[in-house]
Amino acid sequence: MEKRLFDDFSRALRFFPCFPCVLVTTDENIITIAMVHIFSFSPPLIGIGVSPDRYSHSLLKKFKEFVVNIPTKELLEKVSFCGENSGRDIDKFKATGLEKEKSMKVSAPSIKDCPANLECKVIKEIETGDHTWFIGKVLSVRVAKDYNKEEAILYWGGLYRIPGKVIARRH
Amino acid sequence: MEKRLFDDFSRALRFFPCFPCVLVTTDENIITIAMVHIFSFSPPLIGIGVSPDRYSHSLLKKFKEFVVNIPTKELLEKVSFCGENSGRDIDKFKATGLEKEKSMKVSAPSIKDCPANLECKVIKEIETGDHTWFIGKVLSVRVAKDYNKEEAILYWGGLYRIPGKVIARRH
Repeated sequence: MEKRLFDDFSRALRFFPCFPCVLVTTDENIITIAMVHIFSFSPPLIGIGVSPDRYSHSLLKKFKEFVVNIPTKELLEKVSFCGENSGRDIDKFKATGLEKEKSMKVSAPSIKDCPANLECKVIKEIETGDHTWFIGKVLSVRVAKDYNKEEAILYWGGLYRIPGKVIARRH
Repeated sequence: MEKRLFDDFSRALRFFPCFPCVLVTTDENIITIAMVHIFSFSPPLIGIGVSPDRYSHSLLKKFKEFVVNIPTKELLEKVSFCGENSGRDIDKFKATGLEKEKSMKVSAPSIKDCPANLECKVIKEIETGDHTWFIGKVLSVRVAKDYNKEEAILYWGGLYRIPGKVIARRH
């Protein structure tokens, strides 16, 4: 296998195949985020990476809470819209028709159309390069009874995908 | 859509569909990790989450460097093996037959069989719940000329997958 050295590291980061793509609500705004991961199982912590120039960054700093809403591929256009427009200029709930649902433990609304809603309270903020990672403790989880993770959306390197086929189960 | 409240938050974290699954080398050991993400583009930073009870945790604390090796689905059995066995007990290079390749900027070896190798130096360690996140600055990237991210492995919730089909491109 012949390999070549890459000078443009930022471009090289696109070699990762894909990450889950979620809708994060904070205050009354929605952002589309693929910079999201589980940070701990016990306690259950989820982190989201947000650039300081995003409108939601100021909201997260102010309100210290967010909801991770896992969308389905049927919502792809709304997901894409929320990733390409700023809440400074528009009300994304109104613009997309996504429906608010009262959250259980935080004041930010959940998105009713999304089959999984994980409510988080920010317990730590980490500055790493060009992103702030907000680490949230999970306070409430609501999941659709017919939740099907095969319908989720993945994203990275400019490509939206669905999860691929299962090739093995962990022993 | 009828939703139910989840009491077991750790189990609820399995609702995320999948994350990239990589082989991380540090010192002479290999660990399989799905707790990996890009933390920043400029500077290019990659973070890996490692439980303190893992052998690699002590190696990362000591050597402060690692290589993220992106495997292909052809390596699935070796990837699975490296996730289920500890480097305390065995030499995983010998046990799997994976081949070492000298790295460019760090002393930990790269894995020759993997089409992408991202060498990182730890610049920050973050304690979050039951994992330590080691944030590494990317120092070198080597990628196979015929690299194909469709061949990558994804993992979460006990399931290994391949990336699913592309359903849209970012405008």
